[in-house]
Amino acid sequence: MPEFLTLLPPDQARDKLLAALSPLTADPEPIASDSALGRVAAEDILAPHPLPEFPRATVDGYAVRAQDTFGASDSLPAYLHLIGEVPMGEPPSFDIGPGQCALIHTGGMIPKGADAVVMLEYAQTIQDSKAGRLWSNVQRRESLDSFGEIEIFKPVADGENIIRIGEDVAKGQIVIPKGAILRPAEIGGLMALGITSLRVARLAKVGLISTGDEVIEPGQRPQPGQVRDVNTYALGALIEKNGGVAIRYGIFGDQFEALKEAAAKALSECDVVVITAGSSASARDMTAEVIRQLGGPGVLVHGINTRPGKPTILGVCDGKAVIGLPGNPVSALVNGYLFVVPVIEKLLGALPRPKPTVQAKLTVNLPSQAGREDWWAVRLIGDRQYPSGTMSSIVNYLAEPIFGKSNLIFTLAAGDGLLKIHPDATGLSAGEIVEVMLI
Amino acid sequence: MPEFLTLLPPDQARDKLLAALSPLTADPEPIASDSALGRVAAEDILAPHPLPEFPRATVDGYAVRAQDTFGASDSLPAYLHLIGEVPMGEPPSFDIGPGQCALIHTGGMIPKGADAVVMLEYAQTIQDSKAGRLWSNVQRRESLDSFGEIEIFKPVADGENIIRIGEDVAKGQIVIPKGAILRPAEIGGLMALGITSLRVARLAKVGLISTGDEVIEPGQRPQPGQVRDVNTYALGALIEKNGGVAIRYGIFGDQFEALKEAAAKALSECDVVVITAGSSASARDMTAEVIRQLGGPGVLVHGINTRPGKPTILGVCDGKAVIGLPGNPVSALVNGYLFVVPVIEKLLGALPRPKPTVQAKLTVNLPSQAGREDWWAVRLIGDRQYPSGTMSSIVNYLAEPIFGKSNLIFTLAAGDGLLKIHPDATGLSAGEIVEVMLI
Repeated sequence: MPEFLTLLPPDQARDKLLAALSPLTADPEPIASDSALGRVAAEDILAPHPLPEFPRATVDGYAVRAQDTFGASDSLPAYLHLIGEVPMGEPPSFDIGPGQCALIHTGGMIPKGADAVVMLEYAQTIQDSKAGRLWSNVQRRESLDSFGEIEIFKPVADGENIIRIGEDVAKGQIVIPKGAILRPAEIGGLMALGITSLRVARLAKVGLISTGDEVIEPGQRPQPGQVRDVNTYALGALIEKNGGVAIRYGIFGDQFEALKEAAAKALSECDVVVITAGSSASARDMTAEVIRQLGGPGVLVHGINTRPGKPTILGVCDGKAVIGLPGNPVSALVNGYLFVVPVIEKLLGALPRPKPTVQAKLTVNLPSQAGREDWWAVRLIGDRQYPSGTMSSIVNYLAEPIFGKSNLIFTLAAGDGLLKIHPDATGLSAGEIVEVMLI
Repeated sequence: MPEFLTLLPPDQARDKLLAALSPLTADPEPIASDSALGRVAAEDILAPHPLPEFPRATVDGYAVRAQDTFGASDSLPAYLHLIGEVPMGEPPSFDIGPGQCALIHTGGMIPKGADAVVMLEYAQTIQDSKAGRLWSNVQRRESLDSFGEIEIFKPVADGENIIRIGEDVAKGQIVIPKGAILRPAEIGGLMALGITSLRVARLAKVGLISTGDEVIEPGQRPQPGQVRDVNTYALGALIEKNGGVAIRYGIFGDQFEALKEAAAKALSECDVVVITAGSSASARDMTAEVIRQLGGPGVLVHGINTRPGKPTILGVCDGKAVIGLPGNPVSALVNGYLFVVPVIEKLLGALPRPKPTVQAKLTVNLPSQAGREDWWAVRLIGDRQYPSGTMSSIVNYLAEPIFGKSNLIFTLAAGDGLLKIHPDATGLSAGEIVEVMLI
């Protein structure tokens, strides 16, 4: 078929497209940090102050002057005078002088004069020594109030069990780089520094156009020969899941002018346009011609050496990506993962993150044509709950490819992920360990 | 310390908690299918009609009676009379009689009389034969309108390149099981069947309570000894990401009655209550006592053989999970992944899905205490973009543990995932292949 005279490998095709696009840096969006989950930081976040802001105990124990403990041992303990308890959330009202100590809890502020903390396990009150070396002041507060002598059985070094001002984060340090996707840990980190709002990349607007004389709205009852629009909704969900906003432009029959007009409107209103072609060859040709007429440079890649997805078209019109996906729902969605998602990530300026994958042992032989990259929907069989930790020669899943006569969307719905066969392989053998990209 | 006399392994602790909980089946929520991304199906979805609903071509070609092609070869082609083109989206207006064929596109409806499709590659129009076997009717429509004779060079079997009614999905078949998490493929599948709304599990309400005299709101300026509340927000984001709604009940100092009252309110209004303890031992004891007094059976697990997270408390009060997490933000969030997320999944009735992981080679030795399960935040170094396909002895990432003196939340923010060291290991060696759970 003349439309596929030159087929690029998918990685090269994607690189070519991404190289022609720039991140949407113009208008980042202010957002409350507690609503920013999944968004992309549009600026480096600097620590406005050090963390911690005061020297803190990292264990429960006794704040001491380290030199007072030097030489302490089980047989020859150091004796220190307990002068108080550091309250949580307040600076202690006392300093630690020579021969003195204070009870301190994890996170408590180190009193002036103290330079180390002896862990509870290595100390006991004189009262306790009668009953064995078990610390129980918390249970029996009254014994604390009376203070007394503390036996220390192990020396501590200067700074031991203390975290100093700025030791975690220095003032001005970049704690979250521009492009970071904000996960629960980042949201927590912003709060730790009192940063209750920040600027994030605005969501990328992706216009979706379905074409094909046979395609109707999902709410309609198909007549013979008609099928419902799957692609607008499956791709719409994929786009939303990955930092985009899907804007639907509807279904267009195989009329060139109407399609061109809709694509031009979508191009003017969105950051990306995705056209899913009808399944006929003429419908696919029409998409390519629309992209050619929409703006320069137009079609960059027409035909990709992959299955499913050979007829995929990658274009750029006036600086915006315009992607033509095959009409077949599995092809459209698989190639949505491979091309639309990376475009959104590029526009958001997101730092790349590892793709979620699972290792599995293939259950059957899978044929493949050398030079072509194949993607198979697979079901994973095995314990699905928690990672196993070390993996040396242990694989927890079997990967069972899902075969279907046509590329129905339920092939993907039944799958846990997609298995890739490298272009340089001529298939995979049963028993091989493969990497499955979770979908 | 008396609070940790018996430490359960995390897997056993989790099983014990989950066994005491039931899914929230009472009030599933109706939702539009195009808004259902990430939700959990509350009912089996049955196909209301077969798919496809009419016999369809799976390739571009000519619809034929298979027996008319038997014996066809390059040297002795079969000659068929082209009587028309099947329009997309409509039933053909003609039947295929003996010796006849019709042009058909992928997805087109098979005309009556035809029982197979010959791929374009194995056919040519008589006109084309002069210019070589290149199919170009689509480019030169006029030649089609004149019809004519088609040469077929390869026989097809009955049913070849056709998908029959119901061959993908039979009427009444379960296409999406109850408990399925709705991904883009499921959303598309619902639309393919015209199911524009469905019932999903309602979001699980998780009440969040922070405790500790030292803890203040993130918007406030800490005084010496004070720290901002990280846990409410990091856990809140984790909960939202996993099908829950986080409801904040605020920060409570170490006053037992006030905490108990807040916990009782949260328990009455939510499906799960999570209390993050202040960092002192007394604050942790208080959480356990509150859970004991809140309702039966109370505390199920107090102390888990894991790091971080030893002081974690798992309880059930009046059929609802009440979880006490350590106050340290890394402990709280790691144990949120390990205990709070599975509780939400159980309440939603979600079918287990493989956890996203990545295999990596460890860069350094990591010590671990035998019998304890350790979790380390790690950075992944390597090509982050796409899975590599076959993995036989190939690992794409290095896993570099993130060391920090205290368990600051930025340890996790700097990490791509969590690495688990099995309780039966006494550490991991540099160079070992490990599985990293992405966070």
